[in-house]
Order: sequence, then C-alpha cells, then structure tokens
Amino acid sequence: MTQLAELKAAVCRANLDLVRAGLVTLTWGNASGIDRARGWVAIKPSGVDYETMTPDDMVVVDLDGRRVEGRWKPSTDTPTHLAFYRRWPELGGVVHTHSRAATAFAQARRAIPCLGTTHADHFFGPVPLAPPPSADEVRENYEAATGEAIIRRFEELALRPLDVPAVLAAGHGPFTFGKSPAEAVHNAIALEAVAEMALASLALNPAAESLEGYLLEKHYHRKHGAGAYYGQSGEPPRGGGS
Amino acid sequence: MTQLAELKAAVCRANLDLVRAGLVTLTWGNASGIDRARGWVAIKPSGVDYETMTPDDMVVVDLDGRRVEGRWKPSTDTPTHLAFYRRWPELGGVVHTHSRAATAFAQARRAIPCLGTTHADHFFGPVPLAPPPSADEVRENYEAATGEAIIRRFEELALRPLDVPAVLAAGHGPFTFGKSPAEAVHNAIALEAVAEMALASLALNPAAESLEGYLLEKHYHRKHGAGAYYGQSGEPPRGGGS
Amino acid sequence: MTQLAELKAAVCRANLDLVRAGLVTLTWGNASGIDRARGWVAIKPSGVDYETMTPDDMVVVDLDGRRVEGRWKPSTDTPTHLAFYRRWPELGGVVHTHSRAATAFAQARRAIPCLGTTHADHFFGPVPLAPPPSADEVRENYEAATGEAIIRRFEELALRPLDVPAVLAAGHGPFTFGKSPAEAVHNAIALEAVAEMALASLALNPAAESLEGYLLEKHYHRKHGAGAYYGQSGEPPRGGGS
Amino acid sequence: MTQLAELKAAVCRANLDLVRAGLVTLTWGNASGIDRARGWVAIKPSGVDYETMTPDDMVVVDLDGRRVEGRWKPSTDTPTHLAFYRRWPELGGVVHTHSRAATAFAQARRAIPCLGTTHADHFFGPVPLAPPPSADEVRENYEAATGEAIIRRFEELALRPLDVPAVLAAGHGPFTFGKSPAEAVHNAIALEAVAEMALASLALNPAAESLEGYLLEKHYHRKHGAGAYYGQSGEPPRGGGS
Repeated sequence: MTQLAELKAAVCRANLDLVRAGLVTLTWGNASGIDRARGWVAIKPSGVDYETMTPDDMVVVDLDGRRVEGRWKPSTDTPTHLAFYRRWPELGGVVHTHSRAATAFAQARRAIPCLGTTHADHFFGPVPLAPPPSADEVRENYEAATGEAIIRRFEELALRPLDVPAVLAAGHGPFTFGKSPAEAVHNAIALEAVAEMALASLALNPAAESLEGYLLEKHYHRKHGAGAYYGQSGEPPRGGGS
Repeated sequence: MTQLAELKAAVCRANLDLVRAGLVTLTWGNASGIDRARGWVAIKPSGVDYETMTPDDMVVVDLDGRRVEGRWKPSTDTPTHLAFYRRWPELGGVVHTHSRAATAFAQARRAIPCLGTTHADHFFGPVPLAPPPSADEVRENYEAATGEAIIRRFEELALRPLDVPAVLAAGHGPFTFGKSPAEAVHNAIALEAVAEMALASLALNPAAESLEGYLLEKHYHRKHGAGAYYGQSGEPPRGGGS
Repeated sequence: MTQLAELKAAVCRANLDLVRAGLVTLTWGNASGIDRARGWVAIKPSGVDYETMTPDDMVVVDLDGRRVEGRWKPSTDTPTHLAFYRRWPELGGVVHTHSRAATAFAQARRAIPCLGTTHADHFFGPVPLAPPPSADEVRENYEAATGEAIIRRFEELALRPLDVPAVLAAGHGPFTFGKSPAEAVHNAIALEAVAEMALASLALNPAAESLEGYLLEKHYHRKHGAGAYYGQSGEPPRGGGS
Repeated sequence: MTQLAELKAAVCRANLDLVRAGLVTLTWGNASGIDRARGWVAIKPSGVDYETMTPDDMVVVDLDGRRVEGRWKPSTDTPTHLAFYRRWPELGGVVHTHSRAATAFAQARRAIPCLGTTHADHFFGPVPLAPPPSADEVRENYEAATGEAIIRRFEELALRPLDVPAVLAAGHGPFTFGKSPAEAVHNAIALEAVAEMALASLALNPAAESLEGYLLEKHYHRKHGAGAYYGQSGEPPRGGGS
C-alpha cells in the first residue's frame, strides 16, 4: 500500500471506531489524519453513511483546503481540522464528536476539572473550554474561526495539544488530538469516560476538589515521556492504570 | 411497487428504525407517513408486535380517520397524527415516542432550551412545550385534542413545524415531524440526544444560557435552506457538524 | 403439554425475559406463576445460572411453601410471592427485581409519583412505598413479613394490585404483579422505564406536579376495563399510547 | 491441567469477564489470582489487547514481585495487588477497575453508604474510602503505597476484606476482593450496581438514611457464613435476593 492509501485506511478505521465506541449519533463526528511529508490531510466526507464507508470515500485535501483526491465534499468541519494541523506540527490525527457527557460540559460552559487518576492518565490537567468565535468571525469563516479560538485558548493557558489532547468548544462539543488518527480516537474515548465520571462526581459533591498535583504528575508521567513504565516496551500507551 | 406499497414500506421501516435506535420501550411509539396526492395516511397498527411486523400490517386511513386498507385497528394516536397532516400540508411524516430524556422534559413541563450547536443543527430554537388538552376536550376526542393543543402552541409561537420539527406534549411525551417518515425518525433520534445533553448540561449549570443567536442561525442555515453547504449536493442533510 | 408443564415453561420464559430486558444484574430477580386450580406455584430456583436454565429447573410449591416438584431449592423470596398469592386471588404472576431506577426510589424511601401518561398507562396512581418489616418480624420469617408489610400498605391505601401492579419495598426494591407471569414481567419493564423518567423529571423540576387527574383516568381506562380501546380486539394490552 | 495453568486460565477469564460486564473502558482494569501453596500470583499483562488475550499472556510473579513466568511485563498495578495478598491470607483474587459509578464516589471522596439490601447482600456495611498515599510515598513506590493506604484504612475501621470485599481509593477508583478471581469479579459487578443505585438514591434524597442495622445483618447473613440459606446447598452464593 502507498502511504496515502495507508492514511486513508487509518482515517476510515478511526471514523468507524468512533461509531463502535458509541461516541457518534447519526453522523455527528469526524476523524482526520495527516501525511506530514506531503502536507495532505485525509478526512471523512460530509454526511456519508457509515455502513457503506470505505477508505476510498475519504477525501484528501492540502493544508489550504484544496481537494487533492476523492469524489465527495469533505466534512464541513475540515477548516477546523486544518487550523490545528497548520498550527501544531506534532499532530498526526484530529477527532471531533458530539459525545454526550463532553458536550454537556461544553454546553454548560465548564472546563472538565481533573478529579481523578483516570483523567490524569490521559490529560495533564483540566480539559479547557474555548469560547465560541465572534459574530464577525462566524460571518467570515466559521469553521476555521472555531479552530483559531481553540488555538488562542491553548496559547493563553500555555498548553501543548499532546499534553492535554482534548478541548471543549463552548456551546458546541469536544475535539481531541493525537500523534495518529487512532490515538485521537483513543483520547476521544477517554475524554467521554472522564466527562461521565466528572458529571457523576460533581453530582455527589459539587465542591469536589482536583486531584493532588503530585498524583497528576505521577499518573501522567508513568504513561508519557522518558520515565514512562506503563505498557510493554516499544508499545504505545493504551489506557489507564492497568 | 405502487406508491401506496412504497408508503407502507417506508412507514414500517420507520417504526422498526425507532426500535433499533433504542427510542421505544415495549410498544410505546408510532410513525406514520402520508401520500399527499390521495390524502391517505399509513400508520402502525395498535399494540402489534415489532418482531413480526411487515408493511402489510400498516393501516391506511384517510384524513378523516376512515380505514381505507389494512386488517388491524390503527394506533390509538392516529387522530393526533391526522390533526398535524390536516393543518400542515408540508408534513410527510410524523413520529411519536416516549423516549426517556425528551419525556422527562415533558413531565417536568419544561421546553428544551437550545444550549448548543447539536440542537441548532436540527431545531431552530427551543423545542416547545404544549399544554395538555382540557378535561372537556379529553372527554370529546382526546387524541385529536392533543394534536390541536400542539398546533395552537405552534401558532402562538409563530413556529413552522419543519423549522422546529419537534414538540413536547406536557405530561406525555415528544412528537417529531419531517418531510418523510424517515426524516421524522431522524429528528426523533436527534431530539433524544439533544434532550439527554440538555439534562446533563442543566445538572452541571442550572443557569446554562442559550446558544448565541448568531451561532443558532449559522448552524441551522448551514444545513437547511438555500445557503446550505452541509452534505453532498443533492443529498438530504443527515445530521450535525460532520 | 400438561397445565403444570405450561406453567413451568411460562415461568422460565418470564425469568429469562427479565434478563433480556436488562432488569437483572447477576441473579437478582425472580418471577413466579400460579396454577389456581391446584394452588401450585412455580418459581425460579435459588441462585441457579440463567444461561442453562430450563423449565425443568423451576420449583413447584404449594401455597404453604411445601415443595411439590423440582430438584432445586426455590428462590429465597418464595414466601413473599406466596403471601401475595394467598391474599390476592386475582394474581397469576409475580416478579421481583433490583432494577436500578425503581430500587433507587425504594432506597430513597419515596413512592414514584405519577408524572405522566407513560405511568398512567400502566399504574393507576403513584407506585406506593411499603415500610420494611420490623426487627421482630425479620427474626420470625423475614420473607413472608416483607410480603405482609406490602399487603398492609395496599390495604391502608385501599389499592388493588391489578390497578397499581407495582410496589417498592423500602430499602429493598420493586415487586410487580400481573394476571400471568408474562404480564408481571411487562409491568416490571414499564415500572423501570417510568422510574427512570421520574428520576430525570425530578432532576429537572424537583417540584414537578402529578399528572392531571382527568388524564390519569383517561389513559388508564383507554387500556384497561370495559371501555378500553387500545390494542386489537381480544388482544391483551401491550403498552403505552401507540 | 496443572494448578498454575488453571490459575492462569481463571485469571484470564476474570479479566475478560470484566470487559463483558461493561466495567472496563479501553484497558482500564485488571484481575489477579493467587496460588497460595507456592505464593505465586497470576495477573494481567500491562496494556495488552483484550481481543487476543489468552491464559498464556498472564504474567506470574512471586509475592515480592519477581517475575516467575510469562513473556510480558505485569500490570503496573501489580504491587498494589501484592500488598493485599501479603497482608490478607484469606484473599484468592483481586480486581481493579475504573467503573463509572464507583469511580465517581472515589473522585467525590465519599464512601458508598449502605442504602439497601442489594448492598447488604454483598458488603457488610459502607464501602470505605481510603486516602491517597502521601507525596513521599508516591515518590518511593506509588503502587505498593496505594495498597498500604487501603490496608491501613481497613485496620482503622476494623474491617475484614471478605466481609466488605470492596474499597475506593480516593481520587482513583475501586478494588474488590474475593476468595477467587471469579468472586472478585462478581463483587466488582455488584459494587458498580450498588454505586449506580446509591448515586440515583442520593439524587432523589440527599439525606437518604442507611439501611436498618437488623436488615443489614439479615441480608448479609442469609448469604454468608454458618446460617446462610441462599443458593443450592454446597453452591457458592451467586447474588442478591433471588
């Protein structure tokens, strides 16, 4: 398989994995991946049926959004994905869903606090909330502006997207990041689980406090970076404390 | 297939799709569709088993409720469906369920506020709450009166049923509308998702504010009407921002 | 098949239907049925695996609890079932589960208010809460005393078990009744749905008011009794407004 | 099969049963079992895929954590399991998950009160909350310290792990115990059900009171110990009141 064929296959699989994980209602979700050598992004087509979707249905665009390959129109959210890939060269995959609990935080306009080790295993601190674009920005290019509002928020908070690979677009829903499409899907699954647990924790204790800083550090670093000791050597991390 | 056979097949499929989508407990749900040329409505029979249901079990009635075809009694809610078809010539399909979260709003006697873009993608503003019919109306013709109370509510709010294709009958449950039975099912699925998210959002933030008006406009119109750019050209819209 | 073989088959099917409906965790549930001519009750054995259960595993006891047939010990809850059958000759089936939402009301020591037509379609008024037996009663015969506490509660409220075929044993969980084991299962499914909706309705509106009395009357009577017009003629009612 | 082969098979099955029971997201969970004669513990490998997992993937370590058999690294939580086996000779199996509702209590830093008989059937009193290890302990040996903090909590409360075979590690998640890996899985399933019900009960009644002491005694003892009368004679208890 050529590199582009592999990318399209990985992006198709990522989109179907979102459905299998129960994160997608109707067609509300999309995953993309990038071939950094060529600067080409493969992404789900807009409004096409999951049941018959194959790698050849993926649309390939360049970083300016020009269609390179594919018979369909790309997802309407493509300009948001492209904004992320242009700004952050470390990204290899991006996912967007309207998964229930994460979207509830986005609609309640609350960041997801780090209340436990499940969160700390995947996200190094709270999952931030980015404000919506302004009315003017929406008029110009809504989808790109959604991405730019998120990028500004990460810059204000001095966050790197692979340290906290998830964000909530206020009033909209979550985006997750990864070094590959599969890793972005993995983070979307973790995010929804973490959001469900935070919802229930806050119902039990509205003043629930954040995880102790030393536990956040410990959990994040036992899975990520030089001192990581989770998983089999040479294997990518696969999840929480197990 | 004749047009009537096609309608009965579409209505049967719509009823089974409601079950597959997890919106139906026991037999609490029904979908109908209309052949506008003849003024004939096909609807689910009352209390018949989903597992053996075929298009030939659908009952066909005229707009006054006289049975035209079919060996079963039509759904007891048929007069409600007919009231909608008589009043709104743009409707091609109607769905009624007792889906959990939407019914919870109906029982709490609250409209579903538009808290996010998932809502805005499908419903142009809050999903309204219609009061129950009066004791006198119930005595006369309960099911027709349920429909008429909903129609009056849409008129008070100057709403069109294809702009906000869902409503909550207070103390009862949701009805959704569409240009076809399939579209009414689609809107029933979207409604339940939106209601679940609103429930969780209001738990996190009881004072959660409605989506900014310019975002409501943007999301609704990128999928509906002349300027729509979601989905493949010539394709019907299939869902949210993807 | 003999009548007893039919009863055992119906009771086995009822127990398995509870599992299929998602109302049973581990082995927390049991269904029984009665042959009124002989006064024999068939019930699930205690702690036997659902996966291999057949009608021949059902245990048959008389109304005093003496084993008539079967190689297993009957469910530990058998004396509760027998108390109901002795007191109420109209019962043909009894079900006990620890289904999540109904048990939550039992643990919160709240009756389930009638907040909507879904409730009214099945239960003619609130689902009552019965107090637990006293310490002395528990010492003597706990399971029979559980049944007697429920019977006393129905008598205090002047309720008939086929009008409100469900009850919550405080701190314990729900029991449902029916003219047959299948109908008791049907009511157990309806009860859990109604409890889930009530939970969410009360979260949205802690002061949610009961359904208007004339709607309760209308919904209950369109499915039950002489003036019923739901379902196909001669068919037993199968559910809500559909 | 040798005893070790049997242990590895039982531990593999326990890990897969956790997944089947819906208690595991991604790879967040692990089960272990011990061969007391040799002092060898079999446990899930770290971050290995459930779909292809076989008994031969299980890792065998001694009570000091030295690998005895197996080609993979053991779960990172192994030192926590070992601390339990060293301290409590009555344990035959240990399970750790991040199941939603139990983890929500751990994150809210609340013990799970005994609100009903479902709880009392499995756990003789509240499921305790153990504080996290200190920063110093985390620096030294985090996973072992997690186990020791739990052991100290049981000692403070004078609890035995087979009387209350579950605990919440604050800010982290639940561990459950059993005489075998299968029994620890059984208790993990019961714990999550009990936690879900407690969550909903406390939403309905934030001041919900604990089950009467005489009912706690009755329910626990009808399934455990000398006077138990639940289940078939010679059979291990399988669940709640059925």
